[in-house]
Amino acid sequence: MSNPHPTYEALTAHYTRLHRYGHLQAMAWWDQACNMPPKGQEARAAALAEVAALIHRMRTDPQLPQQFERAAQEPLDDAQRANLREMQREWQSDNALPEALVQAKTLATSRCEHAWRTQRPANDWHGFLENFRPVLRIAREEAALLSAQNGLRPYDALMDRYEPGMTSETVERVFGDLRQWLPGLIARVVERQSRERPIEAQGPFPKAAQRALSLELMALLHFDFEAGRLDESAHPFSGGVPEDVRLTTRYREDDFVQSLMGTIHETGHARYEQNLPRELLGQPVALARSMAIHESQSLSFEMQLARSPGFVELIAPLLRKHFGAQPAFEPGNLHRLLTRVEPGFIRVDADEVTYPAHVILRFEIERALIEGDIEAEDIPALWDEKMQSLLGVDTRGNYRDGCMQDVHWPEALFGYFPCYTLGAMYAAQWFATLRRGTPDLDARIASGDLAPVFDWLRDNIWLQGSRWTTDELAQRASGEPLNPAHFKSHLESRYLG
Amino acid sequence: MSNPHPTYEALTAHYTRLHRYGHLQAMAWWDQACNMPPKGQEARAAALAEVAALIHRMRTDPQLPQQFERAAQEPLDDAQRANLREMQREWQSDNALPEALVQAKTLATSRCEHAWRTQRPANDWHGFLENFRPVLRIAREEAALLSAQNGLRPYDALMDRYEPGMTSETVERVFGDLRQWLPGLIARVVERQSRERPIEAQGPFPKAAQRALSLELMALLHFDFEAGRLDESAHPFSGGVPEDVRLTTRYREDDFVQSLMGTIHETGHARYEQNLPRELLGQPVALARSMAIHESQSLSFEMQLARSPGFVELIAPLLRKHFGAQPAFEPGNLHRLLTRVEPGFIRVDADEVTYPAHVILRFEIERALIEGDIEAEDIPALWDEKMQSLLGVDTRGNYRDGCMQDVHWPEALFGYFPCYTLGAMYAAQWFATLRRGTPDLDARIASGDLAPVFDWLRDNIWLQGSRWTTDELAQRASGEPLNPAHFKSHLESRYLG
Repeated sequence: MSNPHPTYEALTAHYTRLHRYGHLQAMAWWDQACNMPPKGQEARAAALAEVAALIHRMRTDPQLPQQFERAAQEPLDDAQRANLREMQREWQSDNALPEALVQAKTLATSRCEHAWRTQRPANDWHGFLENFRPVLRIAREEAALLSAQNGLRPYDALMDRYEPGMTSETVERVFGDLRQWLPGLIARVVERQSRERPIEAQGPFPKAAQRALSLELMALLHFDFEAGRLDESAHPFSGGVPEDVRLTTRYREDDFVQSLMGTIHETGHARYEQNLPRELLGQPVALARSMAIHESQSLSFEMQLARSPGFVELIAPLLRKHFGAQPAFEPGNLHRLLTRVEPGFIRVDADEVTYPAHVILRFEIERALIEGDIEAEDIPALWDEKMQSLLGVDTRGNYRDGCMQDVHWPEALFGYFPCYTLGAMYAAQWFATLRRGTPDLDARIASGDLAPVFDWLRDNIWLQGSRWTTDELAQRASGEPLNPAHFKSHLESRYLG
Repeated sequence: MSNPHPTYEALTAHYTRLHRYGHLQAMAWWDQACNMPPKGQEARAAALAEVAALIHRMRTDPQLPQQFERAAQEPLDDAQRANLREMQREWQSDNALPEALVQAKTLATSRCEHAWRTQRPANDWHGFLENFRPVLRIAREEAALLSAQNGLRPYDALMDRYEPGMTSETVERVFGDLRQWLPGLIARVVERQSRERPIEAQGPFPKAAQRALSLELMALLHFDFEAGRLDESAHPFSGGVPEDVRLTTRYREDDFVQSLMGTIHETGHARYEQNLPRELLGQPVALARSMAIHESQSLSFEMQLARSPGFVELIAPLLRKHFGAQPAFEPGNLHRLLTRVEPGFIRVDADEVTYPAHVILRFEIERALIEGDIEAEDIPALWDEKMQSLLGVDTRGNYRDGCMQDVHWPEALFGYFPCYTLGAMYAAQWFATLRRGTPDLDARIASGDLAPVFDWLRDNIWLQGSRWTTDELAQRASGEPLNPAHFKSHLESRYLG
């Protein structure tokens, strides 16, 4: 029998090879964060640059477009068509920019990010500005080029790299709604919680005990330790490859919540990766759908599941086991500790109620930056004004804990921030769907039966990979595209119910 | 100023890229041995095969020979000429075999090695033989092809891959001499030691204490922890890259000597790699000279240095510190424990006096196998006969601890075994030279001043990389090429002195 789709198969072989080179790259990154001694840095950077260049050459192979065209004429099934669509999407995004711009961007962002590491602690906004202006200029150029090719608005063209199909029109609508009710909700929650006085947990919490607890939690969350592992790094991440997921966390001996919740968050990312469609691994269609959908998994684990009263009941005995019994670990008290809401300066330290405010602010500023409505100099004033109106926090003159706190802008990751809050909304939408299908969900979680959660996520999200657009995925999983009403209900029910 | 050697520079760029891909390969190998969870195996194997194929394509690039020729016409200095020579040596060895033979070899050796893992514990010689016959057939074909190209005898052509320039004529002469006096020496040492009754060390020796001791020993041996690390693996090795050496060891709680001496041995390999000529790293001329020279470094550390009475005095307090005081750790007693000689079945467990007997036997058998003088079926009888005559040990019917004990033959690593004993001989030669230059060497070692040893090895061996042929290297370092008399003197002085 002759091969009915030789070109399509040649394409899949190409992407399989890319997947294999990507494997070595991912492991070298993980090793760099977890193991590498300092003098290995230079050789590692050179090796990573070499394989990145190889991967870039393969992904921008000029023969690909005609292969895509030929493959499109071949008799392909739906999954194969979806794979071809994803190949083409990748190719377009990889080929949009001239080599010179890619190089200029690498240079400008490395310089800016490197200097930022010392400028941030020094609160040196003016020093930062000098390196950040070229980064912004290049990002605008990038956005203009992408926009000219795909017809999206410049900011949307950048966001599309992380969240395909998402437009700022949608984000604006969704965030605009949020902006209306969020400050009021925060005020009510803060007022209500001011009457609670949860008992604080008493440290220190030894690192070894935190690690043992982390491992036990990952097992509880069905992390497959035969296809991944937990290590330590300065900045927690979920890396490696779907076949061998490398999770990291960090431990502070005065605060067990950071590693506890950090591990649960990364385990959500990890289980998505571990359960992508196995038979298609290596193909673009088997990749995670988008950054917001990825975040919807980590937040399904960290926010929807782990901060639910039933789950807190489940882990209270584990805390006593690893850290010794103390009054703070009484489930009701522990739940109050884990759901405290407090407006603050720092996004990554924010609770789930105030977190969206940090994202709205960044979205509004970065969209205006990219579309040329404001300049880099205008950031601090806008930052102060928005922090004041959204969270009632005064950041004047405090660049360090204000507009210099994130690595995203120095690295030109414009368009990424919205994914965090879109992810939180999708997570609420998944759990709303789950609760409709499993009315006794919370009782089952409290009893330790987490299978309904994982089965639903696996079937509806994980195993779908990039088979559908994000809208279709949401529609198939929950009967509707993104609907932020679920997020609002979730917050109201958890924090004001 | 125009570039006086553009082709030479293009060649060095090519080898620098190879070095970078090799970096990712080395780290993935290390990770596989130290970290990888079981389900990562398949994806890792595919990724490693992909980069191995890439490296092979680059190393056999058909444009290289004419570039070598053109570069040879350019005005090169001596180091550059040596680099060009090493490039050509690599190219010849990589291009000697047709692709089909390389593939057949990979298949046959993987099958044989995989089955051997269970056949060895099952003592299943006849099952092994079935898979080993094709391995041997391919190795003979390989030897014949290499021999036709470089004019060496078939066995020498295989050995040349590990030990360039070494011939079986030399090995025969050296081993023939050894064969004369070794059995007598062993008998005399055994007889003499039979009157000693060293006090045995009492375990258990906790893994954490052994690891702490290993790290302290590595520091004592000037291992650069900013350019490498120590981990654990089933089979200890020194891997990674010169810029970031990854050492491994294993711990048995009933026996501290294995990890102690294993770590010291691998640290010898590691320091060679860490001190290869830095400015040339990535170029063939900056690689370690040969397997025997590499082994001469690990054995300089493990045998010459670490089993010298002065060094034993130095480490006795460390053993007490990590394992608690016990009579066995009295330096004189400890030295007797560490220099016990006992003929046995297993090469890797052998002491430095009986070890060469294991190597002579393997050399004689494998050379006869490759040159067609015997067949695979003849191995057990020859093995028994030689073990009997060399070590007085009866291995009849015991294939597991006899001719099936090593992974080398299943993997077609014919020609490798002699390097172990050549390395021991070179190590003795280096220390004889060192003692001539530093008459108070042993006193300085006992006082903890190891700098004379490391300075000499660094200047004479490590920093030389592959600048010279092995004979020239030995000549420059010690005033003569390989001279086994130093090894004999060393054994006589240590064990009969």
